[in-house]
Parts: sequence; structure tokens; C-alpha cells
Amino acid sequence: MRMKNQPLHIIKVGGNIIDDEQKLQHFLNSFASFEGRKILVHGGGKLATKLASDLNIPQQMVDGRRITDADTLRIVTMVYAGYINKNIVSVLQSKGCSSIGLCGADANIIKAHKRVHPTLDYGFVGDVDSIDSTRLSALLESGLTVVIAPITHDGKGQLLNTNADTIAQEIAKAMSDHYQSTLIYCFEKSGVLMDAEDESTLIPLIDPAAFIRLKTEQKIFAGMIPKLENAFKALESGVDKVIIGNAEAWDALITGKSGTTISL
Amino acid sequence: MRMKNQPLHIIKVGGNIIDDEQKLQHFLNSFASFEGRKILVHGGGKLATKLASDLNIPQQMVDGRRITDADTLRIVTMVYAGYINKNIVSVLQSKGCSSIGLCGADANIIKAHKRVHPTLDYGFVGDVDSIDSTRLSALLESGLTVVIAPITHDGKGQLLNTNADTIAQEIAKAMSDHYQSTLIYCFEKSGVLMDAEDESTLIPLIDPAAFIRLKTEQKIFAGMIPKLENAFKALESGVDKVIIGNAEAWDALITGKSGTTISL
Repeated sequence: MRMKNQPLHIIKVGGNIIDDEQKLQHFLNSFASFEGRKILVHGGGKLATKLASDLNIPQQMVDGRRITDADTLRIVTMVYAGYINKNIVSVLQSKGCSSIGLCGADANIIKAHKRVHPTLDYGFVGDVDSIDSTRLSALLESGLTVVIAPITHDGKGQLLNTNADTIAQEIAKAMSDHYQSTLIYCFEKSGVLMDAEDESTLIPLIDPAAFIRLKTEQKIFAGMIPKLENAFKALESGVDKVIIGNAEAWDALITGKSGTTISL
Repeated sequence: MRMKNQPLHIIKVGGNIIDDEQKLQHFLNSFASFEGRKILVHGGGKLATKLASDLNIPQQMVDGRRITDADTLRIVTMVYAGYINKNIVSVLQSKGCSSIGLCGADANIIKAHKRVHPTLDYGFVGDVDSIDSTRLSALLESGLTVVIAPITHDGKGQLLNTNADTIAQEIAKAMSDHYQSTLIYCFEKSGVLMDAEDESTLIPLIDPAAFIRLKTEQKIFAGMIPKLENAFKALESGVDKVIIGNAEAWDALITGKSGTTISL
């Protein structure tokens, strides 16, 4: 199904919103009332860490990625694809936004492979191979909003824990064959800041030239650089626009009036 | 979508299969290779009870139903809609059976209400109000097998724990508007037995006259009577056939050569 002239929004909502009941409700209110085709990709937040701790399953993080042993995979599958995903869906339903909650194994929408790394065993962590954009389009065109938990599969019966930012980006890229797609990252800051501690230093627009300048002049927080590099990769693969900003300023964010817009 | 001449199988697989890794794999092998439109409804088994125990959340059962307080709802949502559902889906995918795992909140397929009982508070237990058979048909016609976890919702943002047998029955009834539907209950016995301890006392066929005779002569185990009454209700609502039998004898069961067939 090709609806190239139709807009599609792919929204990634991060753990800090998921973890805060009030912020989550507020976000879901805004999200539900936003008209049009949309896909929500959610992270996991601290709930998985808390459950692991309650069950005395030690957790190991490397560069912000969770090393996923078999017990941890069981936990993230329960928390992300079960608890968080189904709660988001039931809340959206109550707000008149008919949604369907899926993980990557469902309808084979996200195929991945177990990460291969020269020195480190990430365990059951998956890197995305392919997105079934035709299936996702069909679900969207049937009037559903798709809510995606960051669990994928390898097609051989193995579930895999996968970074939600990456999933959102891969979906946005794949869906840009079908739609005019905008990728929105909602997080706790108002966007890309020159000074991470000062919200007034927001950079409203970053294009490739500005990105090179900001990097050269070391004017942006180093942690932001891989995120921006990924954003440019998405744009080069056909995504129309990437917006990074605060979920609490939804209405302004979705229209590009707040946050940082990244474009070519 | 009306495909009245097309067969649809609705299969409920019980906890004792889910709990046993080897039995589950064997069942999913048979299920995956069985051609045609099919819906799998799974129970929860002992995994939820074990997780509750590991987390020191006391569980209370009344007449085989779990009293579902908020903590228990969180557990069953994680275990049923997360862990079990997604593992079944990923295994089916690996066997070439493209499936989609849903709970009742997803695409609003099963609406329910919190159980009202004169003397007992079941907590977050739901009784089914309606099934969206049109949506389920559309998913089946798009080539997917639907795998359903026994969690429903009230449309007001509340998830509810719901008996999987009842879900299977309600789905079979609703789907009989669209298909020639067969409802199959897989459990640990070879079917309805005259003597619960003796598998050789299997009753191959029960029609309404035989049911009255069996009840009058007290020839069937009392615990089977409500199951059979529900089976007859399903038949009266348009379900073509109900089969009760052992998941391990799948090929014979699905063709009605093993197990007990209940028909009008």
C-alpha cells in the first residue's frame, strides 16, 4: 500500500515518561487526540530493572545497553511486551484511539539477529534486519494505531531485546516507502541543547551544515552526536523529518514549533 | 467478511501444556503444520503462580478462578500477554506459521466488564461482553494465525483477567457468523471420561440426548458438567462442533478421531 502523499508519524517515547504515571497519562492524552496515522514505539524504563531486582536477577549495563541473559530476556519480554504495551493500549482504547500492541515477532514485523560483537557477549540483544512495512501499512490503513514494544525475533524461535530508538528509526525508514514519514523522539529535554543543563540553549533546527559546524566547534553534548548521526541516516533513507523534544510539549512538538527539527 | 463455507478452528490450549516445555513444543509443531484458518487461545498455567510466589504476592483461588488484585493483574498481564504469548508467537514464526499475539485490548477484540458478584470480590476479573469478529476475520484473511492471551479490557482503560476457556467459547460463537467454526479444547485427558481415572472409558460422541442420560445416570465426572453445558451453549449459538481431548494426539483430535466430539 503506497500512500506517499499521506503523513505518518512514528513516535518514540522514552523510559522517563513510561516510569512516571502522571507524565504517561498526559502524553497518552495528547497522543490519542492527535489525528492521523501514527506508530508509537515505547521503551522500557526502570520497571524491568525493578522487577529484576525484586527477583534477585543481577543486571549488567554496557554503554546504556542491557546485557540480556535468559532470565533478563524473560523479564523484558514480560515488562515491555506485556505490562507496558498492554497498559498503553488499554489507555489509548479508553481515549478513542484504537490501537494494537505488538512486538517484532508479531506478524513478523521486525526481524533481527543476535548481536555479534568481537569482545562482548550482549546475550539476547537483537540488531534489526528488516521491517515488514507492508504489514504495518495494512494495519494503519485498517484504522489502527500500532504500539510497538522493543522486543524482536530472529525467525528461528528466539526473542531478542532491541533498542527502542533503533526500532523507531528502522520503522521510520521502512515506512517512508509508503508515507511521508516524520520520526519524533520524545525525551526529558526540550530538544538538542548547546548546554545540556540549560534549556534556553535549544537549537531549533539542524541541517547537515549546522551539524558539521556544531561538531567542529564542540557546541553540542557528545552523547547527542550518535543520536543526530542516526537522525541524518534516517533522513538519507527517505524519512521526511526528525524531531527531538519534550513529550510534555506535545502540541508544539508535533508541529515542529518546539524541540529540535533535523532535516536535510 | 463472511466466509461461511470456510472452516475455522478455535483451539484452547491449557496450562498443563504451557507449563511443560516439551509438550508445548510438540503441540506447537502440530498446530503450526495444521493448514487453514486458526485461532489459538492459551491459558496461563503455573508460571503466574510461580512469579507471584517469587515476588511474595499471595494468591487466592476460588473455584479455580484467581482472585485478581492489582499486583496479581500486573503479574498475569506480564506472564500471559507478555512472556507466554510472545514465546508462542516466536516459535510459530520459526515453524512457518505467521501469527500475531494479542490480548483483548488490542484492536479492541474482546470487551469485558469487571465481574459483579453478590458476595465475593474477584478483583480485576472480567466477564466477556463482546468480540470484534470482523476485526478477527480481517486478520485471519490477511494470512495470520491469531494467538490470544486471556487478558481483556473494559474500554475505560482497565485490563481484566479473563478465563481462557470462556474466551475461546465466546470467540467461537462470534466467529460462527463468519465461518464454519470448530472449537477444540486441548487438555491433559483424552476427552470426556466416564471414569476420570480410566482413559479407556472415553465417550467419543455426546449429543443432547446422551448428555441428559449421562447426567441422569451420573456417569460423568461432576467437574465436566459445566464444561459440557458451555459446549452445548456454543453449539446453540452456531458453533459447528466442539471437540475435547488431548493435545498430544493432535492429528487424531483435529479430525475428530480421538477425543470427545460434542454436537447437536
